[in-house]
Amino acid sequence: MRAIGIDGGGSHTRFVLYDEESGILNGFYIEIPGNYHLLGLERLKKVFKEGLKKVAEDHHFDVLGAGLSGVDRPYDIGLISEIFRDLGIEDVVISNDAVAALWGAVGGIGVLMVAGTGSIVIGRNAEGNVCRAGGWGYMFEEYCGGFWLVKRGTMAILDFKDGLGPPTTLEEEMLDFLGIKDTEGIIYNYYSDFSKSKISSAARVVLREAEKGDEVSRNIVKEGIDGALKMISVVANRCNFGEYFTFSYTGGIFNSKYFLKEMKGAFKRTFPNASFVKPRFDADVGAAMMAIDWRRNNRGKIIWDV
Amino acid sequence: MRAIGIDGGGSHTRFVLYDEESGILNGFYIEIPGNYHLLGLERLKKVFKEGLKKVAEDHHFDVLGAGLSGVDRPYDIGLISEIFRDLGIEDVVISNDAVAALWGAVGGIGVLMVAGTGSIVIGRNAEGNVCRAGGWGYMFEEYCGGFWLVKRGTMAILDFKDGLGPPTTLEEEMLDFLGIKDTEGIIYNYYSDFSKSKISSAARVVLREAEKGDEVSRNIVKEGIDGALKMISVVANRCNFGEYFTFSYTGGIFNSKYFLKEMKGAFKRTFPNASFVKPRFDADVGAAMMAIDWRRNNRGKIIWDV
Repeated sequence: MRAIGIDGGGSHTRFVLYDEESGILNGFYIEIPGNYHLLGLERLKKVFKEGLKKVAEDHHFDVLGAGLSGVDRPYDIGLISEIFRDLGIEDVVISNDAVAALWGAVGGIGVLMVAGTGSIVIGRNAEGNVCRAGGWGYMFEEYCGGFWLVKRGTMAILDFKDGLGPPTTLEEEMLDFLGIKDTEGIIYNYYSDFSKSKISSAARVVLREAEKGDEVSRNIVKEGIDGALKMISVVANRCNFGEYFTFSYTGGIFNSKYFLKEMKGAFKRTFPNASFVKPRFDADVGAAMMAIDWRRNNRGKIIWDV
Repeated sequence: MRAIGIDGGGSHTRFVLYDEESGILNGFYIEIPGNYHLLGLERLKKVFKEGLKKVAEDHHFDVLGAGLSGVDRPYDIGLISEIFRDLGIEDVVISNDAVAALWGAVGGIGVLMVAGTGSIVIGRNAEGNVCRAGGWGYMFEEYCGGFWLVKRGTMAILDFKDGLGPPTTLEEEMLDFLGIKDTEGIIYNYYSDFSKSKISSAARVVLREAEKGDEVSRNIVKEGIDGALKMISVVANRCNFGEYFTFSYTGGIFNSKYFLKEMKGAFKRTFPNASFVKPRFDADVGAAMMAIDWRRNNRGKIIWDV
């Protein structure tokens, strides 16, 4: 079977034409978000139209799968379905991008942690049940997300300033990275001059200082991993996986070799019988795999039941 | 000596004409913020002009003190000084509203905790040194602030939903108070429909459920008070108070008898030799007292060195 897969992230959209037998036949990448909250429905439709033309103009496909950030409710799915209907495509499976990433990483059954700007853990079992933990956005405890790491780092800097915590090399390094003169200035990043992505980008500083041995940064990473392991445990339980399950990951934070090593070590200590695997495919291929599975087994069932 | 005191909060401005011997001679209250970030300098000048007319038209005064929210840096003080200069007033002391509140509550020497939407602890010793802990805004750990209590309550609701924490009566009560149908809906309050004051207003729900015995809410209040006590300890140390110091409080959270009782109990256990006193005067009178002290002892010295 042959499917189009779409991965719509917060800053880019990826299209792929995927064949069960032959693998990836065609791909297209565009630096425009695939999130209708950010883009609006009309502009998203144009992006879809362009991408479909690029990857599928001269090809037949059986079904289309789209994993889109900002798609969380049946209402969202309804809006997106309409866009595809307008483009003449009826056989569509729409899910959150995390679900598509799980399909890509572990082939649809297992547990996935996403740690980019935010974080979420999701799982899907053989019965097709999907469940999640976390992913409530930057205001809450998105353990190991970039924003979370930097917010915790900023708190550590403020705690030292207030006399509530120990000194940390984070202070100088973070100010330097963000191009800020004094500690008070860092606060403005969170209020009058708020930029979620700018703040998140400093996660590499926290990870680097932790790697270099700064105790405060190490404790932040440790706290993040502890929180993540709790989320993984909850999700694995809800999927009734028992102790034998497959875990994988995606998102920019895992690009840090230090973080990946720490995470893997802690994971193996906590879940000695589970597998910690490198993601097999990206979310675009995952979206295509999800669509093929749906076409074959679950036709008519909405895939997103997180 | 006779002084005008101004308390400029986030939602109101208070004027008072205060005489050292006779006390309050005249007062004026207006439901307009005394914060130039919210109001702009021109409108703030009009508010000041009106207030001065109301409280001081037929009265002589020696000095003016203003405690204003949003005034944190020498730059802010410069801007506000200019407004008063334009209004023909040169003998002015300008501080953050928390400093004026400390003057009102304990007469200028001691430790004060403010717990309204946010929270901060400040102290001032006999040498005139002022120091602080906290007060970094709603993104950080403003222990016992209204926003903090509700954010923690929301996290507890989400933790239960994620399977990470125990059930709590907060879920039903908070949704009911905020007029929200489901738990996911509560998230929108923090993002697309963000209102700091709306969120903070639900602090009464957290305090009420704690009072009624909900363990989750009690733990939130306990965690807040533990954090506050650490801030108080740090500030008292920095002021070199030793164990004998005077502590007072202000802000809407202390209107809860339950919270006040819990806070007082924990305070007395932690600082058995310190005094926990009811605030004597509000920040408007505090601003006047601060100005009189400055005129008498510290003329030419900027009072705000937090």
